[in-house]
Amino acid sequence: MKLLLVNPNLTQAVTDVVMAAAQAAARPGTVLQAVTGDFGPQVIGSRAENALAAHGLLDLVARHADGCDAVVLAVSLDTGLWACRELLAIPVVGMTEAGLLTGAMLAPRTGVLTYGARLVPVYRELVASYGMGDRVSGVVAVDVTPAQTFSDPERVLAAVQAAALQLVADGAEAVLLAGAAMAAMAPRLQARVPVPLIDGVACAVGLAETLAHQRWPRPAVGSIAATGGRAVHGVSPALQALFARAG
Amino acid sequence: MKLLLVNPNLTQAVTDVVMAAAQAAARPGTVLQAVTGDFGPQVIGSRAENALAAHGLLDLVARHADGCDAVVLAVSLDTGLWACRELLAIPVVGMTEAGLLTGAMLAPRTGVLTYGARLVPVYRELVASYGMGDRVSGVVAVDVTPAQTFSDPERVLAAVQAAALQLVADGAEAVLLAGAAMAAMAPRLQARVPVPLIDGVACAVGLAETLAHQRWPRPAVGSIAATGGRAVHGVSPALQALFARAG
Amino acid sequence: MKLLLVNPNLTQAVTDVVMAAAQAAARPGTVLQAVTGDFGPQVIGSRAENALAAHGLLDLVARHADGCDAVVLAVSLDTGLWACRELLAIPVVGMTEAGLLTGAMLAPRTGVLTYGARLVPVYRELVASYGMGDRVSGVVAVDVTPAQTFSDPERVLAAVQAAALQLVADGAEAVLLAGAAMAAMAPRLQARVPVPLIDGVACAVGLAETLAHQRWPRPAVGSIAATGGRAVHGVSPALQALFARAG
Amino acid sequence: MKLLLVNPNLTQAVTDVVMAAAQAAARPGTVLQAVTGDFGPQVIGSRAENALAAHGLLDLVARHADGCDAVVLAVSLDTGLWACRELLAIPVVGMTEAGLLTGAMLAPRTGVLTYGARLVPVYRELVASYGMGDRVSGVVAVDVTPAQTFSDPERVLAAVQAAALQLVADGAEAVLLAGAAMAAMAPRLQARVPVPLIDGVACAVGLAETLAHQRWPRPAVGSIAATGGRAVHGVSPALQALFARAG
Amino acid sequence: MKLLLVNPNLTQAVTDVVMAAAQAAARPGTVLQAVTGDFGPQVIGSRAENALAAHGLLDLVARHADGCDAVVLAVSLDTGLWACRELLAIPVVGMTEAGLLTGAMLAPRTGVLTYGARLVPVYRELVASYGMGDRVSGVVAVDVTPAQTFSDPERVLAAVQAAALQLVADGAEAVLLAGAAMAAMAPRLQARVPVPLIDGVACAVGLAETLAHQRWPRPAVGSIAATGGRAVHGVSPALQALFARAG
Amino acid sequence: MKLLLVNPNLTQAVTDVVMAAAQAAARPGTVLQAVTGDFGPQVIGSRAENALAAHGLLDLVARHADGCDAVVLAVSLDTGLWACRELLAIPVVGMTEAGLLTGAMLAPRTGVLTYGARLVPVYRELVASYGMGDRVSGVVAVDVTPAQTFSDPERVLAAVQAAALQLVADGAEAVLLAGAAMAAMAPRLQARVPVPLIDGVACAVGLAETLAHQRWPRPAVGSIAATGGRAVHGVSPALQALFARAG
Repeated sequence: MKLLLVNPNLTQAVTDVVMAAAQAAARPGTVLQAVTGDFGPQVIGSRAENALAAHGLLDLVARHADGCDAVVLAVSLDTGLWACRELLAIPVVGMTEAGLLTGAMLAPRTGVLTYGARLVPVYRELVASYGMGDRVSGVVAVDVTPAQTFSDPERVLAAVQAAALQLVADGAEAVLLAGAAMAAMAPRLQARVPVPLIDGVACAVGLAETLAHQRWPRPAVGSIAATGGRAVHGVSPALQALFARAG
Repeated sequence: MKLLLVNPNLTQAVTDVVMAAAQAAARPGTVLQAVTGDFGPQVIGSRAENALAAHGLLDLVARHADGCDAVVLAVSLDTGLWACRELLAIPVVGMTEAGLLTGAMLAPRTGVLTYGARLVPVYRELVASYGMGDRVSGVVAVDVTPAQTFSDPERVLAAVQAAALQLVADGAEAVLLAGAAMAAMAPRLQARVPVPLIDGVACAVGLAETLAHQRWPRPAVGSIAATGGRAVHGVSPALQALFARAG
Repeated sequence: MKLLLVNPNLTQAVTDVVMAAAQAAARPGTVLQAVTGDFGPQVIGSRAENALAAHGLLDLVARHADGCDAVVLAVSLDTGLWACRELLAIPVVGMTEAGLLTGAMLAPRTGVLTYGARLVPVYRELVASYGMGDRVSGVVAVDVTPAQTFSDPERVLAAVQAAALQLVADGAEAVLLAGAAMAAMAPRLQARVPVPLIDGVACAVGLAETLAHQRWPRPAVGSIAATGGRAVHGVSPALQALFARAG
Repeated sequence: MKLLLVNPNLTQAVTDVVMAAAQAAARPGTVLQAVTGDFGPQVIGSRAENALAAHGLLDLVARHADGCDAVVLAVSLDTGLWACRELLAIPVVGMTEAGLLTGAMLAPRTGVLTYGARLVPVYRELVASYGMGDRVSGVVAVDVTPAQTFSDPERVLAAVQAAALQLVADGAEAVLLAGAAMAAMAPRLQARVPVPLIDGVACAVGLAETLAHQRWPRPAVGSIAATGGRAVHGVSPALQALFARAG
Repeated sequence: MKLLLVNPNLTQAVTDVVMAAAQAAARPGTVLQAVTGDFGPQVIGSRAENALAAHGLLDLVARHADGCDAVVLAVSLDTGLWACRELLAIPVVGMTEAGLLTGAMLAPRTGVLTYGARLVPVYRELVASYGMGDRVSGVVAVDVTPAQTFSDPERVLAAVQAAALQLVADGAEAVLLAGAAMAAMAPRLQARVPVPLIDGVACAVGLAETLAHQRWPRPAVGSIAATGGRAVHGVSPALQALFARAG
Repeated sequence: MKLLLVNPNLTQAVTDVVMAAAQAAARPGTVLQAVTGDFGPQVIGSRAENALAAHGLLDLVARHADGCDAVVLAVSLDTGLWACRELLAIPVVGMTEAGLLTGAMLAPRTGVLTYGARLVPVYRELVASYGMGDRVSGVVAVDVTPAQTFSDPERVLAAVQAAALQLVADGAEAVLLAGAAMAAMAPRLQARVPVPLIDGVACAVGLAETLAHQRWPRPAVGSIAATGGRAVHGVSPALQALFARAG
């Protein structure tokens, strides 16, 4: 089984962290391929960058998804998730979506922890868009940047631990680390936090493997059915071809 | 990996159907053991039978879960789900819960289809208890009994097909067959319904395998943490021992 | 008029406290009978104990409800409430349900106060299952056990007072004491808390008397209609007979 | 015990119907006094009439509530309910509120039936304002006027029966007759409808008796605490005095 | 274009503040007329005063709306909003409604700031009645009275600033000053608060101008359609005539 | 005042229809400039096209918004709305958002009418993302394409009329025509539909004029504050410069 990990931003270091976490989580026999965006935001840190990154993400899957059995979105805002599901005939799983669904089986309510207060409302809206608001106890941010994960890891670890304990004090019975760059932290921090620390990458890999094994058919009607072919212009030939396909 | 399938009602035929569906869905290397209740309701068809069956279910896991890697509740009302999660150190997955979570990755909204108008409110409440109401387009019943699945399968198939198409007309982009006895119908009916027909047993097996592979720790605080040992009386020695365990 | 008070756990002291509160609340002419479980949890302090206690509760009503005009569940998680309503032809009222409904007539939003942080999520889920979440300002726990109500009452009183005042500061305009063992505290603490302290037992007795006086018919269709008789095995003859009855 | 029934519109015939239903429902020893508005709308049939009627209702309670033990709002839009609760030291119960709370103990979901499509959104908003939307399956109107209850009762009965059966078909497990003029219909129609037909007047009388018996204190803080005295002008001396009271 | 500003309470100083804020906000060519109540509450500070003020408000529009192009409710509880919409053929806008709708275009979530803890639940209910709860981060009160806006303005400014900053810390990305007497504060405080300080009067004037320019037809069916004429008694001739009109 | 109308798809005919509706709605003195996308989808008819169009939309505003006082998104899915608000210092209004907010002042609940069953779930999700679900009675589609608006206008008019009447029968008290190509239909159809037919373009122009007149400051903190400059690559120089700006 082959999974495509798609990081639509331009930071290879994030892709590498996600890839390492994915490899640690994958089952024997699962082959992973990770691709990084070549246009769009360097790192997604705002609403506009996230909107722009959707184009890059679609472009990456247009060029690399053929021959894969499922796609994992290696971006914690699950950029372009339903658009990918509509375009592709194979399963697509977002890492935050996967973390929330997995959390729902581990605990009554999950707390969500991310980088930067600026994105807290955006994650809250993402949770709401999944209809999962009743299963999330809260969303909090650590006041560090994804870049500091690499430059000052001990500070980031301490901040994440403190924020996780705050979420637990406020009612979380599991904590989702929502941030692609956080993917490697869960194992290191687990011993210091009394509830499961959920790594969205591991969850997404597991659910992608599962869906690919189950081979559900796609809907043939409705909002994610194949379109029958649509005309788009001024994009890469691969993406234009993907839109033009009957489905 | 060994999964325990627990059917708390007393009808072996239902256990057999679930076991067959589970075996078809399981990955190579997964060993399945199915157990059937020995006290409680013959078939769960009412709120009171469901409440009573929780005791039977806990008794079955007390006697059979040791040595297993995960538990699948082979009962479509997911009887005793969170109670099991609290008592056991291994993952527990309900078949309707699993169907809803899987459906959330396949389609924006899933319709739920079950046996008998009497249980429609109960399934609606179950969906709401999972916080998944926004992802479910509706719950409908076919006017047949679980027993007719065995005695008059063609009638049941026709009724399920009609109800599934009605759910699609009303906005479902996937349909969950919620009824343990329906477990084998999805493959037969899929060609006649234009959206994925989700079989909760297959979903539950897949998610149980995934959770067992991932080995998340249990929460050490909160409402599903190990209790540290509780005193119960007048139940089977195995169940009494399970409650008495520190965790 | 005769009311049956049913305590499904095995602690007679709790039954006695509830009985005293009920007698203080009952109208002249109301006769009260209190029964205590003889199998199941010593005290309900976890999800699994609550699930198990439903069997005990059904068994108690099967043996004692004949000749009564209504049933009061003397257990603050309202264990088995809808199952009882389905099985019995007489009204059944849960003490926390009754407290919430009464609170809704006394104040815009009620705060809920219970024993032990572990059960806070369970009470939150109970409130949600009644669709009353918008009328509840929050659920908080005092860090004492039901047993301390008897062994260290002053400490419990002080803790309950502090928690009630916290609920008021956070927006509660009434406070429900949700815990059977708390039933006697409301009168003692009322002078120290500036909003009504609602005792669920008194509420349940009042509502049970009212429903019994009004003699509403049962639904003849739907999820709590009489089943027409169901087969259960391996339970007490009384419970088996109750399930077997046409309605 | 003395209950005041307050009908803020000017139609004595409605007051009489409500009074008869209340007397049939009251317990022995309960004394009922019914008063009818002397300014404002002839019959409340629109949003503006309902807004205006609140003044009339407050005026009636200012003049008649002294010496009473509780107030029942004999108007199915529960006009001025929380304003009364704030002004008065005795319990106040609305008939639709009472019907919804009683329905919540009789069935998982109640359907609401009223006069005239024009008021359907208003009742839906009333239900939502009580936070009871999850317990109501729907609101439907019969296409008759309150006046026809007196002039063409058979037609009204037939229309109500048909609408009640439609609510049941759509998932109601109880039906609330929301309309003061409908108060007498429940007994006549019950045999033809398979779920409880709830008469809000009977419910309100029962709950008012219960609250008056229980003697809960009023909140001393918050949005319905006594105001300490407020200045209003250009209203009746009785109403001015009620506002001016310390509480 | 002529707008009528209606202040149903009896405090001319509040009308004057609102009028000044409205004039600062109005476009060239907009003529403003402000009217103050002549019966009812001196200042609305409780639920009962708000209920009573609806009569005064309807009376004011009955006497003054003819010849106007739109009505602005110059009262921050939007007293009688939908009743006015039903009675009048011209647009009606509430100042808090307008502030919430404007806030929805400025920020994902708006915090609401008002006078006095007593009214916090009432504003929360108002927000909920507009279906805008998901767009409001919280409601807080400053512990000052509307009268202090005039007698001790510096204290009020300091209190409002502190409360606004608290709302921002808790997730508000805009802050609505909900209180007619606060209307003039926004410009003075804006430099000290890092999110937009929304003045409901300015919002209401802008939206009333816009609706009056757009000339939408009224609904001819439903709950705010013209009634065709309704009988009310004991009110001013102007109000009686307004109710009696066909539409 | 100058407004920029941005149509991110590539169909000039749609831009022309929107421009005509906008000019009919604009106040004297408002200057309108309409721009059409030059890469991306020909017409947005699917989730993936909508995701892709966000890039085109950001590119258009990067090139054309300088010197404008506000932006109107001339695309009925409000593509990229919050991303634009984050990037630009001037107000941005979406046409469906504007229609929903305007509808909220015209009627208790608005029905939404659009092209093609495929997009019904997408509009439902859009409504939910605005937190306006309680104010929307339903979303329905006419079974015609935007292109038929030009090729077979009578058929489209008839279909829209029928669907609007269906929405009214199901509880809508206003109807929003959500589809840029429908912008010109409201005046023609209004006489045949008994509730306001809301044209989102007119609403958006009115609200954009209003916001531009009011000159609210932008939030300086939170999820739509200026970012301080972000690095993006492989996009147009204008868009790269817009992202790079301090704010």
